[in-house]
Amino acid sequence: MNAKQTPFLSRLDAVAAETEALLDRLLAATPIDGETSRPARLIEAMRYASLGGGKRFRPFLVVESAALFNVPRQSALMTGAALECVHCYSLVHDDLPAMDNDALRRGQPTAHKKFDEATAILAGDGLLTLAFDILSRPQTHSDAAVRIELVTALARAAGLGGMVGGQMLDLAAEGRFAGTGPQRLGETDVRTLQAMKTGALLRFACQAGGILASATRSQREALERYGSAVGQAFQIADDLLDLEGDPTLVGKSTGKDAAAGKATMVGVLGVSSAKARLNRLVAEAEQALAPFGPAAAILIEGAKFVADRHA
Amino acid sequence: MNAKQTPFLSRLDAVAAETEALLDRLLAATPIDGETSRPARLIEAMRYASLGGGKRFRPFLVVESAALFNVPRQSALMTGAALECVHCYSLVHDDLPAMDNDALRRGQPTAHKKFDEATAILAGDGLLTLAFDILSRPQTHSDAAVRIELVTALARAAGLGGMVGGQMLDLAAEGRFAGTGPQRLGETDVRTLQAMKTGALLRFACQAGGILASATRSQREALERYGSAVGQAFQIADDLLDLEGDPTLVGKSTGKDAAAGKATMVGVLGVSSAKARLNRLVAEAEQALAPFGPAAAILIEGAKFVADRHA
Repeated sequence: MNAKQTPFLSRLDAVAAETEALLDRLLAATPIDGETSRPARLIEAMRYASLGGGKRFRPFLVVESAALFNVPRQSALMTGAALECVHCYSLVHDDLPAMDNDALRRGQPTAHKKFDEATAILAGDGLLTLAFDILSRPQTHSDAAVRIELVTALARAAGLGGMVGGQMLDLAAEGRFAGTGPQRLGETDVRTLQAMKTGALLRFACQAGGILASATRSQREALERYGSAVGQAFQIADDLLDLEGDPTLVGKSTGKDAAAGKATMVGVLGVSSAKARLNRLVAEAEQALAPFGPAAAILIEGAKFVADRHA
Repeated sequence: MNAKQTPFLSRLDAVAAETEALLDRLLAATPIDGETSRPARLIEAMRYASLGGGKRFRPFLVVESAALFNVPRQSALMTGAALECVHCYSLVHDDLPAMDNDALRRGQPTAHKKFDEATAILAGDGLLTLAFDILSRPQTHSDAAVRIELVTALARAAGLGGMVGGQMLDLAAEGRFAGTGPQRLGETDVRTLQAMKTGALLRFACQAGGILASATRSQREALERYGSAVGQAFQIADDLLDLEGDPTLVGKSTGKDAAAGKATMVGVLGVSSAKARLNRLVAEAEQALAPFGPAAAILIEGAKFVADRHA
């Protein structure tokens, strides 16, 4: 909250605050039905990895895409919380020494630095598992068929053919496996990698609104086109931030991508073409939502926010 | 298969062969609907971690508990395959250097030895995610409400209040965290730890038959009592094997528990009391299934098999 608070930012902040409160309840110390106990150190690490930070942009996309159809906010927040669990688990595992070996995340020590590697691995596993627990609860949606559709969609987005697969392609591109060196990826390969690593969860966020609403096929396709454009824009903006951003604002070390020879769209296209692509993607996102009329204004602002962010 | 093949062992082997074939199809190289691509190295590691080994005792429990109610075998096999994905992911992550640091599993190099740590972490994440994907598919059950109940039950069994929490308690008992030393756990603490670490998935296996069949409350409670007894028996037998077993039969290093100061029921009770407890647990398992009459004979043999196994 600050003097420059726009209507868009207050809606983003509102979702963040509600998501935070919901995750706080979901990660309470007391075991729930079907659980034996919740070990204190594990809960502490899972809370550390998921509370108190982040813009909660993925939950925002779920909530605002669901709002197009007047889905109860509770349903969208539960779905957003599940998605945030997956996002946070992926950060914890990606930061591990065997992966990206990062010491800072949102300006704080990463989970394995704050705790230890074993605890970080288990906290990630626990968050991933909790995501599916959350989606399966009646509070997420009264219709079991809708909840199961969310489970399928999130599993496909997060799994071997989505986010996890994307991280594997990213490590391979860096030449991290025995007997290989860094790969020079072309535009198509970079696009596939990013569509999986970061794009899949962002697409799921937009898809989720349509699933929760049992929307028509053409409405779902519109949301997927929007989600795909936002996902690509998000990644290009991220890569530009890594190249040009201020580490004190970004909250993690910058310039690492170039140092690690990371495959980025900015690396493939160059800075000015990447910026032009970013503008085209925002226009695509806007176009995709045209069928929803003025109700989609907040999502269009979301796409612009992603492209313009400085942290 | 050998000359001493009993009817019990042929049924166990049959489930193992069907589970193997099913996992082989589920882990095909071709992406499915909602996936972008399946990176070759990731699929290879996930297949390495889940195919070609194991007695598939958990899928056996699912299939034979479901068979009490004449649930279609396909449903039980899909559920068993999902459960086996969770079991195999947990082995891959538990074997990691930051966790139990094991080099051998079923007589073969562990996943991080065969590949590398990053690939092993991602293969585990991918298997856990795939488990929920599998449960969510219509082939698992025609009724979405049944599938969602499986998702909830597996998530609770596998997550922070079940298996993942149990591994955390196990590491804590070994004094693995900074500023702590090995703990001398009492019988109750050891029982809780094991009910979570290994018991939860075995209980889920037995519970799953009742969920797939929409069984009555008392039928489900009977299966849960059976599953709980089998889970405890399984762990005591495992601890006895570690103490007395032949490493060439067991397929992993033995004597490690004592060396690591692991909290085991054998350690708490002593060998002869642990063996007496094992016999009582088999009797309890048998008693729990009395309401099902002779149809439950194979599950009772399963409990005896767990208690008597030498590898």
